[in-house]
Amino acid sequence: MHPPDYDVGIIPTGVAMANGVLLTDLYELTMLQAYHEQQMTGVAAFEFFVRKLPPQRRFLVAAGVAQVVDYLADLHFAADELAWLAACGRFRREFVDSLANLRFTGDVDAMPEGTVFFADEPILRIVAPIREAQLVESRVMNLLHYGTLVASKAARCVLAAPDRLLVDFGLRRAHGAEAALLSARASYLAGFAGTATVEAGRQFGIPVFGTMAHAFVQAHGDEVAAFEHFARAQPDNAVLLIDTYDTERAAQRVVELAPRLRREGIRIRGVRIDSGDLGEHARRVRAILDAGGLHDATIFASGDLDEYRLRELVAQATPIDGFGVGTRMNTSADAPYLDCAYKLEEYEGRPRRKRSEGKATWPGRKQVYRCYDTAGVCTGDTLALVDDASPGVPLLAPVMRDGRLVGATPDLAAARERARCELARLPEPQRGLGDAPPYPVAVTPALRALAATVDAAT
Amino acid sequence: MHPPDYDVGIIPTGVAMANGVLLTDLYELTMLQAYHEQQMTGVAAFEFFVRKLPPQRRFLVAAGVAQVVDYLADLHFAADELAWLAACGRFRREFVDSLANLRFTGDVDAMPEGTVFFADEPILRIVAPIREAQLVESRVMNLLHYGTLVASKAARCVLAAPDRLLVDFGLRRAHGAEAALLSARASYLAGFAGTATVEAGRQFGIPVFGTMAHAFVQAHGDEVAAFEHFARAQPDNAVLLIDTYDTERAAQRVVELAPRLRREGIRIRGVRIDSGDLGEHARRVRAILDAGGLHDATIFASGDLDEYRLRELVAQATPIDGFGVGTRMNTSADAPYLDCAYKLEEYEGRPRRKRSEGKATWPGRKQVYRCYDTAGVCTGDTLALVDDASPGVPLLAPVMRDGRLVGATPDLAAARERARCELARLPEPQRGLGDAPPYPVAVTPALRALAATVDAAT
Repeated sequence: MHPPDYDVGIIPTGVAMANGVLLTDLYELTMLQAYHEQQMTGVAAFEFFVRKLPPQRRFLVAAGVAQVVDYLADLHFAADELAWLAACGRFRREFVDSLANLRFTGDVDAMPEGTVFFADEPILRIVAPIREAQLVESRVMNLLHYGTLVASKAARCVLAAPDRLLVDFGLRRAHGAEAALLSARASYLAGFAGTATVEAGRQFGIPVFGTMAHAFVQAHGDEVAAFEHFARAQPDNAVLLIDTYDTERAAQRVVELAPRLRREGIRIRGVRIDSGDLGEHARRVRAILDAGGLHDATIFASGDLDEYRLRELVAQATPIDGFGVGTRMNTSADAPYLDCAYKLEEYEGRPRRKRSEGKATWPGRKQVYRCYDTAGVCTGDTLALVDDASPGVPLLAPVMRDGRLVGATPDLAAARERARCELARLPEPQRGLGDAPPYPVAVTPALRALAATVDAAT
Repeated sequence: MHPPDYDVGIIPTGVAMANGVLLTDLYELTMLQAYHEQQMTGVAAFEFFVRKLPPQRRFLVAAGVAQVVDYLADLHFAADELAWLAACGRFRREFVDSLANLRFTGDVDAMPEGTVFFADEPILRIVAPIREAQLVESRVMNLLHYGTLVASKAARCVLAAPDRLLVDFGLRRAHGAEAALLSARASYLAGFAGTATVEAGRQFGIPVFGTMAHAFVQAHGDEVAAFEHFARAQPDNAVLLIDTYDTERAAQRVVELAPRLRREGIRIRGVRIDSGDLGEHARRVRAILDAGGLHDATIFASGDLDEYRLRELVAQATPIDGFGVGTRMNTSADAPYLDCAYKLEEYEGRPRRKRSEGKATWPGRKQVYRCYDTAGVCTGDTLALVDDASPGVPLLAPVMRDGRLVGATPDLAAARERARCELARLPEPQRGLGDAPPYPVAVTPALRALAATVDAAT
């Protein structure tokens, strides 16, 4: 709540994108100055968790840990960032100088990406000198929140259409470039087959899929010429968009075109429908393709899809082989944010707890234990203090120690396999899209007792 | 709808953020290959517009044009991007080589940022050789969609709380880093006073605001010590967070602390409340501060705010001077996406139109004319062909010609001033948050006739 007291200088219009340390809230830096001046250098433990699941979610899927690790491993103030801080008129020079050698030297424990989790369960803990642990709050939350938001939404799509090919089509309406890239990754992690976003394919090694746009058909004027030109350019892979003018007429044109192209060794892989009643069109188009001998041409559909619409189409046994799922998935449209927090749970060995109305937190360093029945299905979790052993499998594991990665970098393929197994082990009520009794998460007596003790002391 | 047919190679986990040309959908590149092989080099005109406003919006505010200009001005394939395309097994070498000297050489017309607009009105037109105009579709949409989405949501907050200080607090739950930066910019454009995101301050020259976090209080254990330490570190600017334990008790502590600090020249600027019934707490806290002589200490509030809650608090004459508005604003939570499109309207001088069910578009290059009454309030718009002069002020103006900027780079301060004027000229029904008769947008007879002609020809 400060007025601007520095010269705004040059105003660049572009977004120079970087994983920079100034991608933080101002208050992290003002608090750091105070910690510095008070010589508060003690070790702090912060945990990231979701306070409450959105009413539209039965479970969440952890994602974004890999990006957090990259961010922490590279944490530093570049010379131009220090110069900007020194010049902005808000910080003392001696404090800004002290930032020059700040690095992340702490410990990180986390649930591996792809792990299913529930409200109040920490998915990541940072234990570090308080300056480091505090500074990273904003970006750590930004990465874990969005990764988890999308992986959780995409997992619901996968459960709703388990045997169909699902492809992320969401770049154009994702909230910026990073959202497009991270949602391609998170949806692949959750079980999507790939993405249409080329850069996500390049950066994460995710399979890239694509068809054609209406503009291609329109630029040709003649639909048949457009189909033929596209097929010649992609002789093994052409998926033709057939709804620019009249879907069924276009399907008939594909049937007429196919034999001619086949003689030249060009195969039409399939068609895409992007408007109207997708189920109804797909049935008619399937009949047209089959009658024309194109039994192996697949039908791909897109347009306003999400898990609810996928479930309907699947329930009607619609002959659609694959779906492009975009906007509603990567904006998580029915629940576009999670009520998540990154909270101080311990400082200098003393447990801490926030008691703000409606936002109370569990103190101390915690672990989550999960129990399974004999069929391997989850039966319930226990939220416990780390040294308060409980039955079940502990879910948080070491990721960084003293600022260094423990073992290998979190691997996307492994996370995807984990998500697949985790979804298979979800209890039946959590697998559906509607209301369900909440998954049981117990809190140990020792943790409850600690919370009472902390309350009594403040 | 292609299977992956290239080696995935090394899988990096981090997001190397860049305004790269591969931030595009795969189909843009497959279409480019077909255009290339068919020697289709004609000039295409594409327009970006919103098909239908979300039911929760009465108007939209154009934003993101500055980012589009930066992107287009820098459009090129870097050597590593070409190498990746050549190696991915999907494109012919000769086509990939042809991309090496691709640059944006076209024209751009747009509504200046900060302009209010409505459904079906193009806010940006690109006229360029079809390869260029097609390739940029995904990223142009990505930038205009999100900028406009947030500016429109933020404008509603500004209208709901016109005399209060509004600050973007949304980095942590924005959808990735770029969303955080672009939403800081878009909300400032729409009338917010500034942002908490430091990097947005640095990149865009936006005023940066900040208070303190609960962790700071908790790390101290003793609330008074925390307040005192923070005030010493920010002797002119300290805003103390008072809801960690008991809001009114903390306000009393601030009153007791203030005189002692004042003797040392340290002034407490204000307090922040982040939980509970903000209006009720603010009234009690105001009374406590006033009784303690702290009449000039301001009250700042945050937590689950949006235009609906702001309107309630303002209607109750709540003594809150400023608001931190985060998650719900920069995810546009009640309408997290717009039904926008970037459509081919003309190729080689011939008007084009998509007729897909529920997604039909108006053909040809278009202009939007706006009429005002004598008081300067908008009375209605007309959607017309560019050479079909209509009464009113034309809203789209030249931005780029032959790939070069016309005039100065779009300026954020000017856009903010424009948005202020535009909001002041909105008709009364569009200023509210509830239902309203739609703003009148007429379509000229010439445009209707052209659409019928195009339909008859396909």
